[in-house]
Amino acid sequence: MEFTINQIAAMLGGETRGDANGKISMLAKIQDAKEGQIAFLSNPKYEQFIYTTQASAVIVKKDFVAKKEINSTLILVDDPYTSFTTLLEEYHKLISFQKSGIEQPSFIGDNSVIGKNIYRGAFSYIGNNVKIGDNVKIYPHVYIGDNVIIGDNTILHPSVKLYADTRIGKNCVIHSGTVIGSDGFGFAPQEDGSYKTIPQLGNVIIEDNVAIGGNTVIDCATLFGDSTIIHQGVKLDNLIQVAHNVEIGKNTVIAAQAGISGSTKVGENCVIAGQVGVAGHLVIANNTSIGAQAGILKSTVEGQRLLGSPAFDVKEYFKAYAAFKQLPDLNYRLRELEKKIENLKTSKAMQAVKQD
Amino acid sequence: MEFTINQIAAMLGGETRGDANGKISMLAKIQDAKEGQIAFLSNPKYEQFIYTTQASAVIVKKDFVAKKEINSTLILVDDPYTSFTTLLEEYHKLISFQKSGIEQPSFIGDNSVIGKNIYRGAFSYIGNNVKIGDNVKIYPHVYIGDNVIIGDNTILHPSVKLYADTRIGKNCVIHSGTVIGSDGFGFAPQEDGSYKTIPQLGNVIIEDNVAIGGNTVIDCATLFGDSTIIHQGVKLDNLIQVAHNVEIGKNTVIAAQAGISGSTKVGENCVIAGQVGVAGHLVIANNTSIGAQAGILKSTVEGQRLLGSPAFDVKEYFKAYAAFKQLPDLNYRLRELEKKIENLKTSKAMQAVKQD
Amino acid sequence: MEFTINQIAAMLGGETRGDANGKISMLAKIQDAKEGQIAFLSNPKYEQFIYTTQASAVIVKKDFVAKKEINSTLILVDDPYTSFTTLLEEYHKLISFQKSGIEQPSFIGDNSVIGKNIYRGAFSYIGNNVKIGDNVKIYPHVYIGDNVIIGDNTILHPSVKLYADTRIGKNCVIHSGTVIGSDGFGFAPQEDGSYKTIPQLGNVIIEDNVAIGGNTVIDCATLFGDSTIIHQGVKLDNLIQVAHNVEIGKNTVIAAQAGISGSTKVGENCVIAGQVGVAGHLVIANNTSIGAQAGILKSTVEGQRLLGSPAFDVKEYFKAYAAFKQLPDLNYRLRELEKKIENLKTSKAMQAVKQD
Repeated sequence: MEFTINQIAAMLGGETRGDANGKISMLAKIQDAKEGQIAFLSNPKYEQFIYTTQASAVIVKKDFVAKKEINSTLILVDDPYTSFTTLLEEYHKLISFQKSGIEQPSFIGDNSVIGKNIYRGAFSYIGNNVKIGDNVKIYPHVYIGDNVIIGDNTILHPSVKLYADTRIGKNCVIHSGTVIGSDGFGFAPQEDGSYKTIPQLGNVIIEDNVAIGGNTVIDCATLFGDSTIIHQGVKLDNLIQVAHNVEIGKNTVIAAQAGISGSTKVGENCVIAGQVGVAGHLVIANNTSIGAQAGILKSTVEGQRLLGSPAFDVKEYFKAYAAFKQLPDLNYRLRELEKKIENLKTSKAMQAVKQD
Repeated sequence: MEFTINQIAAMLGGETRGDANGKISMLAKIQDAKEGQIAFLSNPKYEQFIYTTQASAVIVKKDFVAKKEINSTLILVDDPYTSFTTLLEEYHKLISFQKSGIEQPSFIGDNSVIGKNIYRGAFSYIGNNVKIGDNVKIYPHVYIGDNVIIGDNTILHPSVKLYADTRIGKNCVIHSGTVIGSDGFGFAPQEDGSYKTIPQLGNVIIEDNVAIGGNTVIDCATLFGDSTIIHQGVKLDNLIQVAHNVEIGKNTVIAAQAGISGSTKVGENCVIAGQVGVAGHLVIANNTSIGAQAGILKSTVEGQRLLGSPAFDVKEYFKAYAAFKQLPDLNYRLRELEKKIENLKTSKAMQAVKQD
Repeated sequence: MEFTINQIAAMLGGETRGDANGKISMLAKIQDAKEGQIAFLSNPKYEQFIYTTQASAVIVKKDFVAKKEINSTLILVDDPYTSFTTLLEEYHKLISFQKSGIEQPSFIGDNSVIGKNIYRGAFSYIGNNVKIGDNVKIYPHVYIGDNVIIGDNTILHPSVKLYADTRIGKNCVIHSGTVIGSDGFGFAPQEDGSYKTIPQLGNVIIEDNVAIGGNTVIDCATLFGDSTIIHQGVKLDNLIQVAHNVEIGKNTVIAAQAGISGSTKVGENCVIAGQVGVAGHLVIANNTSIGAQAGILKSTVEGQRLLGSPAFDVKEYFKAYAAFKQLPDLNYRLRELEKKIENLKTSKAMQAVKQD
């Protein structure tokens, strides 16, 4: 598997500078690349490496101006990072061992319909009345409950668990150990201090192009006919908690170990950092940005950037926090002032005595 | 599956107002309900919907007084929410596909005793010397280690893992991916900077009526004969960490992503919110309430309500936090005062000069 | 299985005081120990129990001086805690049921090489081109992807998932539900607000003597040839997030629910407490100590002890936090000062008027 620099430039719609007949067989980082490899330069802080790299080719931005001599052939493109990503994807398709077929033993219940070109790993379980599209990959130990529907090209990594009635769209990727459709945390307090379980009868709907990391949990909705909904293009990281009846808008990204409490509606294109907690029954507006470990206790306004627990405007937070670090000093200054005022009053009183 | 409003009212011990012969086939939320469905009104902020809902019946509180005309038949009860929950439960029993029997392949070791009316899903694993009660449901990919004991009517969802010697009571529900009995995090530091593993020889005991969410982890106790104990009626959400030798008292509720460190004893009827961290070797008194993301560094007193990290009284916390948000302003005011005092002293000095 | 106190003292290289012919059959805590059992005293706050314990023998520090009469035989050693741990380990080896052999059904792909004295549990999955050393224990429902390499004596508990190309060293223990090698969270934002997945082509390398708890997730590195690396002797607790391209240095210990963001390099002998979050692309120096729930936003210096979010020096943090708790009072004092100054100025103005 080898390409000429010319072929790669053509694939990326880029121009070349230097010998374009060199052969490329591997992708690498600019600081590590060897002959026969291609790298990219996007972040200016790596510019130094372009003058010393042994890469046969480097993808750079169209308007890149070299400060010294460069030995590598250059491929000029609009966005080197995106171009490199495109190459990675092509490479990935070529190198990845494309699993298909059915390994045994595997289990499939009654009335389930499976598409074309499927991989069903050993020990995978498919319940009754399940519908699975084409090119779906079901790795070993995956559990698919009754009545689940899965769209084309979706990948379920080992030990993903889909409770009954879950719906997954097309082109989704769900990583190992993730649980979808478990009971919402709903309990009615009783007079004797115990709790009665509120049956959880809804389901989870995951739309197209959603990616979910490992060991994340998404609970089903409470009432029959209701759904916890993850809209198209959402990206969820590892170990995230999504409670019952939550809705997460299109193209929102949530980092690891964040948690969204019951019935909260998160808007589109939000960015929620790691270990954030969002309380229940809130509306997080589109384009809200929430910093790591923040605690969200009220609904947000479009475009807000928040930090702290409870969270408020990130800039205000950093100002307050800077003062917080100075609090012992501030406290000291306050005590000093109190003394001075006491002295002033005393001397004024003495002065008054003198004057009288 | 259809009931008359009369039949439902009888089941709930409620009175009807309006045509009680209408047929009900589904439960729904008051704002969404259609003909043939039943809804409930408990929270006054939803009262508006009772005047416009198409629900054939609405469950309301005995003393409900309508402000406008209502088209639906009313069922008057003491507590509409509880009544609705009762209906949900009955409905759940009717609609849920009651799994039973043994799917193959499944594994069972030597000397294990299994009760009546069991479901053992495909790829479920039962070790040696295991005792399982009646009506237990063991979903696919569940792992039950040697010497485990499980009480009647307990449900283990797909891929629950019970390490050897774990005991689970009656009527428990444990969701997918939860791990019970893994080694406590115990390591003895050595002189060379490395750590030596302290063998973890205890087990986990879970009493009756406990519910545990998905991907939670409960470690075993350290010493042989000791147990990490979850007492009856406890409700644990998803992704919770319960360390070795922890004890959680009756009817305590813990929300998602909270963590309880080693040897801490949590009392009865506590409410611990999401992402809370509790340090090790503490005693959390009965009826302690801990707000989201709080960090508990010392033992608590009965009835305390805590917030912050480290946590203190929730009301005090909110007061301090309100002042924290004003810190830049407070800092500014302090500087202003310092200037004023400086001026006062200067002018007084000058005055003194003048007077002398 | 019974030993004399003499035999145990010999094993520990300790001296005895009292009758060394007594028989020991069990280990126990000093406050609970009965005849025929052995306990240890390390923490002085448990000293009281040595005067009342029924333990046949107690392991104590060489220089221990009794304040009252003790009935138990003493074994004098350098470090009672370490000695007790040694006993526990020996005991553990004796009592633990040593699984071995192959349970069926289990799956093994092509060209995989398995060492001697292996346990392969039912429903375990081994892909193609896998190499597994001697004495490895693979519990039920473990998934081992293609090209994985596992060293001697490593234990994989039920449902551990190793993605393709993962490497695990010798003497490692990985607990249930842990996922190793899942895709890093890498997405390139597109102009239409959607995200394009960046293929994750690297792997995870785990060196020797590493312990990992349950339901932890370790992502693979992004580029082909790169690795997320967990160095020898590292101990990771439950539910931890380790993002793509992270490196964790030798003998570092990380407690439950902590998260390390992408490309951060954690040094050796660090201690990271529970629920800590570390941002991406940082360098955490050797011997850094990070307190529970801290948020690390910048690289650290060797030996730093940090707390808070964002974190700074732990002592400074506690001072600032003590003042934070007093903020409402501080605010009040500031207002009082403002009033006093206003009064002073007024009275001075009046005085000035009088004097003029």
